[in-house]
Parts: sequence; structure tokens; C-alpha cells
Amino acid sequence: MKPILYSYYRSSCSYRVRIALNIKKIDYDYKSVHLVKDGGEQFSDQYQELNPKSEVPFLIHGDAKIAQSMAIIDYIDNAFDGPDLFSKNLEERAKTIQLCEVINSGIQPLQNLKVLKDIVKRFEINDEQKAAWGKYWIEEGFNALEEMLKSTSGKYSMGDQLSAVDCFLVPQVFNANRFNVDLNQYPKIKSINENCLKTDEITNAAPEKQDDAV
Amino acid sequence: MKPILYSYYRSSCSYRVRIALNIKKIDYDYKSVHLVKDGGEQFSDQYQELNPKSEVPFLIHGDAKIAQSMAIIDYIDNAFDGPDLFSKNLEERAKTIQLCEVINSGIQPLQNLKVLKDIVKRFEINDEQKAAWGKYWIEEGFNALEEMLKSTSGKYSMGDQLSAVDCFLVPQVFNANRFNVDLNQYPKIKSINENCLKTDEITNAAPEKQDDAV
Repeated sequence: MKPILYSYYRSSCSYRVRIALNIKKIDYDYKSVHLVKDGGEQFSDQYQELNPKSEVPFLIHGDAKIAQSMAIIDYIDNAFDGPDLFSKNLEERAKTIQLCEVINSGIQPLQNLKVLKDIVKRFEINDEQKAAWGKYWIEEGFNALEEMLKSTSGKYSMGDQLSAVDCFLVPQVFNANRFNVDLNQYPKIKSINENCLKTDEITNAAPEKQDDAV
Repeated sequence: MKPILYSYYRSSCSYRVRIALNIKKIDYDYKSVHLVKDGGEQFSDQYQELNPKSEVPFLIHGDAKIAQSMAIIDYIDNAFDGPDLFSKNLEERAKTIQLCEVINSGIQPLQNLKVLKDIVKRFEINDEQKAAWGKYWIEEGFNALEEMLKSTSGKYSMGDQLSAVDCFLVPQVFNANRFNVDLNQYPKIKSINENCLKTDEITNAAPEKQDDAV
């Protein structure tokens, strides 16, 4: 059973799952959901039936139909062979989830496309204020993440093997660059990201490498 | 080894972990971190050394020191006996995490105290606009959650046993009530919440039952 990933090339949450699939060396079919064209394909009746939250990524694998990148990455880790994305050691496992969540619930929700569009309209703000908002929340999260990574990281976020944390870190740095965050403030995050970008697993998951990239 | 929970009675993320500890019937020590008094005890040097993200909940259990409610609840589930908070079946497990994340990363981050304080100051909005923002994101998430619960729920969110999803759902409904969300729009969420509130595990975790409640 070949999994099907519903993805959009620029979606950082889809990017996370593409990295996880590559680390596990899983062959998958890519289905593009264009988040902008015609008001967003994620709002079509067909797609909303799959995912009522109208978001990518979404994974189908046999009978399993899963939304939310954390749920998909945990599923991938358990359902397929290959390197562990989450450690089998309980304490290490907890640290892995903790670091993923600093990004997943602490940063990304505040600077995604949907929220940015909403604050512009709702609070009648300009592009500069929008950019400042996004940058603020990325830096607020990165300040903590940098500190936390000091005790867990090696070449990558959790020692010297790629893990679920790297699936979240690289796409968030990609977004940070779009918001002009100065990564020199975060030497650990910067060096982990650079090391990640030297691997095929991660470069092949990059937005510009996807079939739907413009 | 008795775990220590750093918590604040009104924090919905702390409430989640209190429920999880009660479902697993784990005896724990409660340490209050007052999020408002003197600018917030979570910003003290002592607390930031534990959790650089300056947030509750935080759990200490032997050598394990864990931030982020998802990480703590997953740890509790694996480290202690008692009812499973996450199913052992991979597909059910994925659905459980998916539903937790609709709340954890989809709703709560947009309506927590820190973000509300920020939008008031940053965008110079009034109390009415602040309340409308919080209500909007809760309803946006509940619209999807209600739909998703149709295929997973019984008496509770995942069939007829309390699960991790209920740890997230009840505190989010508690917040929804503070934002005057009309729960009659969400009959599934409403009935699950009512059923949950009939259990000792959940009522004993309620904000008003905690030692630091005012």
C-alpha cells in the first residue's frame, strides 16, 4: 500500500511530513492541494469531506486517513520500518515531542497564511505590521527552542540522528527566513538547519523540489 | 517517585494534564505558578531555568523534566499503568492525536492569555474586538472538531472510554464558555463535555478545585 500525501509545496506543515516520509524512505504519491488558487482548493467539498479542517497535510494509507502533521508523523514512525523519528526511551521521546510542540503549537499557528490573512482584514493593518507580528512569534519561540536544544542537540536536534524535531525545525527556519528573522541570534538552530540541509532526505522535501512548485 | 506538576488553576493546558493524571490515577504534588501576579511567576529566573518557554504545565518525574502538554500526556501514558490515553491500534492512535492537535495547535494557541495581551497592545483594540477574535478561532476549530467527532465518539471523544482527546476537549470547552461560544451549535462536543463532567477524574481536575484557585 503506497501512501498518498495531500500537500502544498509552500505549506510548512506539509514540508514536515515530506521530510518524515523521506527519512523513513517511504515511496508515496503526491497530490497537490493549491491553498491560494480560486480561493483555495482546501475549501472544495471533495477535500473538506477528507479533512473538515480544510488544511494540508493529509495522509491516506490503506484505511488510515489522517490530518495534522504530528498525528501523521507519529503514524508514519509506527507503521513503517526505518530510522526512529521518536526515541524508544521515554525521557528522550518526551523531549522530542516537547521540541516539536514548541514549533507546532507555539510558533506555526500564529504565523500561518490563514491567521495572517485574518489579522490584516480584522485589524486593518499594513504589510509591515503583518510582517512584524509573524517575526515576533517566530523569535519568541526560537528564544526558547535555542535554549532547549542546548541539552539535546548534536549534529541534529536530538543528537546525531535525524528525528521528528528536524522535520519541524527545517520548515520553521524556512518560514523564519521569509520573515527576515536574523538566524545569527540562534547559533544552535542555525547549525542544525545547515546540517539538515546537507542531507538528501531533507533537500528532496524542499518546497522548490515539489511538482506543484511555481 | 511522585511526579511534580507545575500548574496554574486557570491554565487550560495545565487542566489537560491534571485530567490525564487523574485518569491514570497518579498521585502527584501540585506546584502553583501564578501566571498573572507580579507580572507572572513563569518569568522568574528559577522557573525559566526549568522551562525557557515560560509556560505551564511542566512535569518533573525522577530525571524526566517535560514541558508541553502533548509531551507530558504522552509520557504519562507510557510511564504509568492504568487506562490507555492513546490507543494501541495505530489508526485509532492517529485519530486520537489528530483530534488533540485540532485543539492543541489549531485553537488554543490563538486564544491564550499571552496572545490576547499581545493583540490588545499591538493592534490597539478594545475588549469587544479581543473577545470576538478569541470566539472566532474557537468556533473555527470547533466546526471541524464537531465533524470529526461524528466518526470517533461514543459517550466520550473516542468511543466509551476516556482518552487523551477528552483531556483537551473539556478545558477547551471551559475556555469556549468564557468567550460566550454557543455550544448548541456543537451537539457532539456539548454531549461529550457533559458526559466528561460526570466523572470524578475530570471534575477533580477543574480549575476551581485546585489549591491556587481564587
